[in-house]
Amino acid sequence: MPLGKRTDCGDAKYSGVQVPFAADINSSLQEHLDAGFDFITAPLISPDAVSQPVPPDSIQLPYSPTDILLVQPTYSNQVVGVTSHGIEPDSEAPDARLAGAKALRLELEWASHMSLQACILPLPQLRCNAHLACILNQVLNGLSNTSIWVQIPLSSQSEAAADNSHSSGDSWRAWNEVRCLCNHSTKLGVILEVQSEVPRLEEVLRWHGEPVKALLLPTSAFLTNRRGYPTLSKAHQELLTRFFQLGVQVVLSGESRHSHLGTDTVPSAQNGFPSLSESSASGTSVPVNGVSAHPLQLYCEYLSYVFRRPQLPQGQEEMEIGYRDYLQVPLQPLQDNLELQTYETFERDTPKYAAYEQAVHDALLDRVPQSEAATRTTVLMVVGAGRGPLVRAALNAARQTERRLKIYAIEKNPNAVVTLHKLVAAERWEDQVTVVAVDMRSWQAPEQADILVSELLGSFGDNELSPECLDGAQRFLRSGGISIPCAYTSHLQPITSAKLWSEVQGYNDLEHYETPYVVKMHRFTPLSAPQPVFSFHHPSKEPRPDNTRSISLAFPRDGSPEALCHGLAGYFDTQLYGQVTLSIHPQTHTEEMHSWFPIYFPFKAPVHCPAGAAIQVHMWRCSANHKVWYEWAMTAPSVTTIHNPNGRSYHVGL
Amino acid sequence: MPLGKRTDCGDAKYSGVQVPFAADINSSLQEHLDAGFDFITAPLISPDAVSQPVPPDSIQLPYSPTDILLVQPTYSNQVVGVTSHGIEPDSEAPDARLAGAKALRLELEWASHMSLQACILPLPQLRCNAHLACILNQVLNGLSNTSIWVQIPLSSQSEAAADNSHSSGDSWRAWNEVRCLCNHSTKLGVILEVQSEVPRLEEVLRWHGEPVKALLLPTSAFLTNRRGYPTLSKAHQELLTRFFQLGVQVVLSGESRHSHLGTDTVPSAQNGFPSLSESSASGTSVPVNGVSAHPLQLYCEYLSYVFRRPQLPQGQEEMEIGYRDYLQVPLQPLQDNLELQTYETFERDTPKYAAYEQAVHDALLDRVPQSEAATRTTVLMVVGAGRGPLVRAALNAARQTERRLKIYAIEKNPNAVVTLHKLVAAERWEDQVTVVAVDMRSWQAPEQADILVSELLGSFGDNELSPECLDGAQRFLRSGGISIPCAYTSHLQPITSAKLWSEVQGYNDLEHYETPYVVKMHRFTPLSAPQPVFSFHHPSKEPRPDNTRSISLAFPRDGSPEALCHGLAGYFDTQLYGQVTLSIHPQTHTEEMHSWFPIYFPFKAPVHCPAGAAIQVHMWRCSANHKVWYEWAMTAPSVTTIHNPNGRSYHVGL
Repeated sequence: MPLGKRTDCGDAKYSGVQVPFAADINSSLQEHLDAGFDFITAPLISPDAVSQPVPPDSIQLPYSPTDILLVQPTYSNQVVGVTSHGIEPDSEAPDARLAGAKALRLELEWASHMSLQACILPLPQLRCNAHLACILNQVLNGLSNTSIWVQIPLSSQSEAAADNSHSSGDSWRAWNEVRCLCNHSTKLGVILEVQSEVPRLEEVLRWHGEPVKALLLPTSAFLTNRRGYPTLSKAHQELLTRFFQLGVQVVLSGESRHSHLGTDTVPSAQNGFPSLSESSASGTSVPVNGVSAHPLQLYCEYLSYVFRRPQLPQGQEEMEIGYRDYLQVPLQPLQDNLELQTYETFERDTPKYAAYEQAVHDALLDRVPQSEAATRTTVLMVVGAGRGPLVRAALNAARQTERRLKIYAIEKNPNAVVTLHKLVAAERWEDQVTVVAVDMRSWQAPEQADILVSELLGSFGDNELSPECLDGAQRFLRSGGISIPCAYTSHLQPITSAKLWSEVQGYNDLEHYETPYVVKMHRFTPLSAPQPVFSFHHPSKEPRPDNTRSISLAFPRDGSPEALCHGLAGYFDTQLYGQVTLSIHPQTHTEEMHSWFPIYFPFKAPVHCPAGAAIQVHMWRCSANHKVWYEWAMTAPSVTTIHNPNGRSYHVGL
Repeated sequence: MPLGKRTDCGDAKYSGVQVPFAADINSSLQEHLDAGFDFITAPLISPDAVSQPVPPDSIQLPYSPTDILLVQPTYSNQVVGVTSHGIEPDSEAPDARLAGAKALRLELEWASHMSLQACILPLPQLRCNAHLACILNQVLNGLSNTSIWVQIPLSSQSEAAADNSHSSGDSWRAWNEVRCLCNHSTKLGVILEVQSEVPRLEEVLRWHGEPVKALLLPTSAFLTNRRGYPTLSKAHQELLTRFFQLGVQVVLSGESRHSHLGTDTVPSAQNGFPSLSESSASGTSVPVNGVSAHPLQLYCEYLSYVFRRPQLPQGQEEMEIGYRDYLQVPLQPLQDNLELQTYETFERDTPKYAAYEQAVHDALLDRVPQSEAATRTTVLMVVGAGRGPLVRAALNAARQTERRLKIYAIEKNPNAVVTLHKLVAAERWEDQVTVVAVDMRSWQAPEQADILVSELLGSFGDNELSPECLDGAQRFLRSGGISIPCAYTSHLQPITSAKLWSEVQGYNDLEHYETPYVVKMHRFTPLSAPQPVFSFHHPSKEPRPDNTRSISLAFPRDGSPEALCHGLAGYFDTQLYGQVTLSIHPQTHTEEMHSWFPIYFPFKAPVHCPAGAAIQVHMWRCSANHKVWYEWAMTAPSVTTIHNPNGRSYHVGL
């Protein structure tokens, strides 16, 4: 039974529970489904079988009845296998190493044979696991259905050093080593063992960009509330909420530690259970839907409570859930004509057009004093009018300011022009608005404009060639005239995002590594704050401005932990007019605005960044006849190749 | 005129000279050819043209008459272009940066247009050259004939810091950055400016593995000997000899500093010139062939003297020159039948068979006491007898020791068996030698052997499946019998070798990155001493030995400079019997033995190794039905993927 109905957390609504080896796995499964869980994780083979040495040359499979009893195909989705503890392919003892290698291979192949959806592999140590990785990599290359979840503690480096249950070492480093050795296989994920202490936020954040599939939550991490029920500390609750929102599942492990609520007593609501509304208010109590005989049911219900508590995303935020981490090649509105659906999506972006309206409003007031309001007509040209939203915004501004406005609406897409004409007729704008169906670059304007309004910006600001278009349109702007927008700047930051990089890797060609993608980034970790990249100002003071750019950016990472960098996240902000701005920069994002997702520039190979080491990035905006493109590279902490030379893989057509 | 006739130094016999810009390049070229040089390096454009600012939007080419006058196609091989000094695409001043970017592109494209074989690009600084690299990379992607030689000082890190002519920085690091940014283009090389101080050896050695094309040798580096002639310090002479042997050319630069020997006086042999034989003896004087009017001729003659002085390689060493850095896929003698040529090459390896003869000799003396010499017959089986060299070695040993020997010569290659039969007949060995034309793995021996002799080792010891073959053959070895060889061990070391890696990169597929190559390694730098990897002993004590292996190796690099690691070099050594060994390990290589070149395991991507950072390498010898293969990876200083999982790209067939 899912933890709740919310749809913004993906598979996180399905919770699991770790069970001991059971000869009759079907009844074990059913028992835990009845307690509210959706799947179980169970040892692949009996612990008794593990302790027996595998005879040399044996190809005998580990004993387990599961293949006979797992007759229903759905069961393969409800049982996650767990390889045996005590398998040590990287032991320093040669015998343990050989035996470990053999046992690990047999168990992983067994999991694959049973078509399990996933199999958990507890890392035996946090030092070097190269031999384990060798076997894992071999098996991964042959897997079709099964994913492997590497199990490691969620602990900070300093904590791990003091932890005796594992050899001291850094969990992330151990994971990174296995993942790199296994060539970033998409079949490889992580299950993080939650400890009784939650590490500091920075340590948690580095997992956002990693393929964490589940949290393993021991009952020992729970506290007991004043009524005697299991509850989690505030830090643990926040941890769970954070990972739920990344779509990460929770697997409960361990015995029930609240035994007075166990199988032999049947608690009722009168016995001290808070109601759901009460628990929502107190935040530390346990909701319960009824009575239960299963000792772990209260934990499951508590998970459900934590899962359901955060507010559901509304409106646009909800609509964007489906776009999370989904790569799109940027639009090329200059080269291609946009489709109806695209116009409709963009036109619904109320905050954006409100800002444009405000910008025109302010510009009209600045240009035309009240004394001339009735006599002086401002000529405003909308370059790239589409289906008319900027025309409407400008007319609204004129009405509010009581200024006279004459509008030319220039649009090159003949399909949009049809709608535009209809809009003008329907709204009775004919005396104020002239529709011009022409490419702005070849238009001969009948008069000069006071204000030029455009919405030609892409996710990276200039990446849809706004600079080139506006330079061209500038010839029909009166000297001293205004461009809205008057300036824009792109921004970059290095990120960890195994998910985005894997998507690119999946294409298996050079071209896709050298292409930027528009993407609603969700599972990523910023490695340093964004920095400004390229800026453009309109109207330009130079007659033929040079729109090529180059920049070197040094991203400090003092005190930041070791990381893998999968590429660069890009944003932009723009000054429309005066104080009126729009932004998709994470720190200044215009509220509720949805027209732009960030942009992602991948690296051909992820780059290892030692703790604290600054990241040096270079980017170029290049142009040649009929095309503009970006090139990008890193030179510290190590040197990558320059991506996309001469725009060979990706360019924007002029 | 070449510096000498020696053929072991490749193109190093052609020397060049740097000349100022000349309007009439033909006469400048001819003048320097007459002085003894083979090519000139000359500025692509007039220094006057450089100082004029390029007008915006100009596509005007830099002025040079060379394209009109270079009518003879051979001239493109005799003129190396040099881009202008003072081009600074990475200047912190925006104007200099823009102008530098534009000028650099024009000049490089100009060099390409003229189909020059090479163009020298002096690095303006040793700090970051990312913007220069961006332009260079774009141009490199379009080049067909022209190579670019990046010019940097040959100076150690500490020297560079004190050097004011360049921004302080490490030459190698600057080169590495440009090379990595330009994706290891094979069109990119290095010309090293020799300084008046030669750096310590370690600093010089790191260039062995890099694509150094030329040394730029200023006349200011020369000393004056007691007769007033130009000469080089011993350190400079050794430097030249070292690079000559790597095939690196020398380009002389600067004015003549020995002006009393200049154009206006005509020295004669009586004026104090040593004869060639005298100069050879003294080692610091100048040979001269006659009289000269060119001020630089004496320098050229001195270069010739240094070039000719080292002893010419003899015999096998000379034969191997053509194999330097040439990649070969290892033989698979078990799976394939060797060709006549291969047998002939191997049979000429006298030191190898002398060692086998000695091993059999010692074994016979140990096994058969003098008292039984006439009565006891030793049964010796040659498994893989080929065309009979081991049979001959064994019979020689028997004759010398006066021990009785009965030989079975087992060979699976029917073509070799023909020769073997003829040999036995011609040498009248019929009463001692029985030829058995069969695969040793399926042979039913009529009796058991006292000694098993084989030569099944590959460059990496076990890589031609000696362990598997000898385990199979062991069933016809008497208990207590002897295997020759009785043990062997492979060895590995990480190396820099841009040349070898580029060859692999040239194939542009995954398979070639995951294949080991047999190669006479020449242009490489070891990054740490070799370490033992896998060992095998015969006869095996176990009934069914496990021949899979795994190892983790930590290569210390304390005090070593920053480097790029292109993969691993492999060797082997073997104990034939008692004290008799064979080795291709660099420190113990059997003299004059030529049957084996080292083996090279490439990495998919070169790995950056910070100064002093240890290198952690892992290797596995894996087996499955009918095949054996290696997998390899690095986990420090950063983590590579595991190469060749499941032997997908390369395996040895059983």
